[in-house]
Amino acid sequence: MLHAVVPAGGSGTRLWPLSRAQRPKFLLPLTGTDSSLLQATVDRVRLLSRPDHVYVVTGAAHAVDVARQLPEVPGDNILVEPSPRDSAAAISLAAAVIAEREPTAIMGSFAADHLVIDGGAFAKTVEKAMELAATGLLMTIGINPTGPDTGFGYLRLGAPVGPGYQLEAFVEKPDQVSAVEYVSAGNYLWNAGMFVWRVDVFLDQLKRHRPALHDAVRTLAAAWDSNRREALFAQLWPTLEKISIDYAVMEPAAAAGKVGVVPGDFDWHDVGDYNTLGQVLKANDKVGNVIVRGTGDALLSEAKRNVVVPAAGRLVAALGVDDLIIVDTPDALLVCPRDRAQEVKGLVEELKQANRTDLV
Amino acid sequence: MLHAVVPAGGSGTRLWPLSRAQRPKFLLPLTGTDSSLLQATVDRVRLLSRPDHVYVVTGAAHAVDVARQLPEVPGDNILVEPSPRDSAAAISLAAAVIAEREPTAIMGSFAADHLVIDGGAFAKTVEKAMELAATGLLMTIGINPTGPDTGFGYLRLGAPVGPGYQLEAFVEKPDQVSAVEYVSAGNYLWNAGMFVWRVDVFLDQLKRHRPALHDAVRTLAAAWDSNRREALFAQLWPTLEKISIDYAVMEPAAAAGKVGVVPGDFDWHDVGDYNTLGQVLKANDKVGNVIVRGTGDALLSEAKRNVVVPAAGRLVAALGVDDLIIVDTPDALLVCPRDRAQEVKGLVEELKQANRTDLV
Repeated sequence: MLHAVVPAGGSGTRLWPLSRAQRPKFLLPLTGTDSSLLQATVDRVRLLSRPDHVYVVTGAAHAVDVARQLPEVPGDNILVEPSPRDSAAAISLAAAVIAEREPTAIMGSFAADHLVIDGGAFAKTVEKAMELAATGLLMTIGINPTGPDTGFGYLRLGAPVGPGYQLEAFVEKPDQVSAVEYVSAGNYLWNAGMFVWRVDVFLDQLKRHRPALHDAVRTLAAAWDSNRREALFAQLWPTLEKISIDYAVMEPAAAAGKVGVVPGDFDWHDVGDYNTLGQVLKANDKVGNVIVRGTGDALLSEAKRNVVVPAAGRLVAALGVDDLIIVDTPDALLVCPRDRAQEVKGLVEELKQANRTDLV
Repeated sequence: MLHAVVPAGGSGTRLWPLSRAQRPKFLLPLTGTDSSLLQATVDRVRLLSRPDHVYVVTGAAHAVDVARQLPEVPGDNILVEPSPRDSAAAISLAAAVIAEREPTAIMGSFAADHLVIDGGAFAKTVEKAMELAATGLLMTIGINPTGPDTGFGYLRLGAPVGPGYQLEAFVEKPDQVSAVEYVSAGNYLWNAGMFVWRVDVFLDQLKRHRPALHDAVRTLAAAWDSNRREALFAQLWPTLEKISIDYAVMEPAAAAGKVGVVPGDFDWHDVGDYNTLGQVLKANDKVGNVIVRGTGDALLSEAKRNVVVPAAGRLVAALGVDDLIIVDTPDALLVCPRDRAQEVKGLVEELKQANRTDLV
């Protein structure tokens, strides 16, 4: 039985105006259904878990929304960080809290803002990772690349082991030439930031590579169900090193031969922008228009391959336009070609510089 | 001193979603200022007139909006038609009401939904028309064509007379070949539907060519300031022939040599669609973007020659799009290329057929 941890952080400015500082990507219904990415992630891990074995780690700013979106997750399993201190602190805290309850539990960590359509295939892959995690490896799940993407880090496979491989190395986001090499080489997978391990094994590696972080999250976890939790958080949390879980634990552990990898046999999407969203979701008609489920209607006339988000309860009428992004929200509207979806980030910067913080 | 009549009718479905059945074109601020087309028209004729010599003829559905937009026009000068019966009835009624007050008054009729930027040049042209109208001609004002437009009727000039010409003939909207011929011939002007005449001369021609209509509007006008007005309207108005002023009076009068024309020495625009609006209004930046004054803001980034109407109090952000129309209203949004502006009419038809009468 898996203890599933869902770190729910990040903003997603390329998904403005739907995503805002107060309404980050993981809270948005970008799944082709009414579920948010967070809700879909929790639904997915529930195939391998029990409701009281699901944990979410999120920031104070989003605790209320997370609680409301996930009424079935026990309150004590929603770990609220007083301030963001990167993924090592968030994931280590969850591991320590789980270890208090079940010292050799197998834990998986799955980001809240990724989209996986086939939950069954996802579960089968995680089960393979659990099998290897039980033997004492820190497991990661690698995605079979669909192309030489430079937006992801890569995992270089080593020797086969059980249903997976040793992980030879984590590889940073490559340039285009290297990405093409990796994909044609065949022994590289995308690093999707999914981890599976026994909490005792993980905490042992954490103690070895980041002892201060280890001691702090252990102290916090030991006081979890006591009245000292808040005071300890106030005292310890601001002192924690801001570092990613990859740098803090996974890379040094990989160098020591302690990390394995299972290839992910499922569609996996980091829905980073509206163009990607349009590629991932099913078209609503035969000419490739994707209408993201919202509160409004869309009327498309002689219009092809557009991504339309009618999220302001209004009619969005598009006539004679192709390959366009149209995102309608109550206080801001975006119109932009799909091939410039990445640049939406720059608009958000412009708004910040113009002091329109009400809109970002 | 001119008695100025402003027929305020027509809908303007190519200007959807700004224009609606209940909010026709002439009520909209499409002038580059906060004024509606109606308000700008009345401001323009006021250069030649007195406040109590300005008349508006409009439908019952728009009487309240007209009254509110034009607080300086006396209530008795706003002629409210119980139902639309085309331009002959509307303009003839105004002529008859004016004749009751001043039997040989010179009256001008100027549509509420045309845009003229240079009010001074307009006034000078109308003064020339008044000079010829005083001699007993029914005058029309012809616009110097800026190109072979097939969307207007044309006026064929005859012999010079005073500061103008005899009108040889009204010519229907031409095909492209004929339009090119007209413009190169040099003796054709656009018919802008502007008329100037002595009311006694006009009513005489009306009596000759449409005696029933003449008698009805005379009867209504005679009872204008009495308590019989409403009953007479209910009795007579529904019986009136639905016919344009051109067919009813101007064409037969022209055939009888009674019509003159003065060339209009001013910019004149029938703002029929958003592309035309973008051509007519001054761009807001050096790359040709026209932002129609509304209640919201626009943020344009690497975007050229767009026509943007932020009329819903929201931010309209456009990134990397050119030659696009973006119209944002509280319950509907339109996105459409400028070169397909004419087809917006078809969207309104689609909405009607889909029973979305709330949006049309």
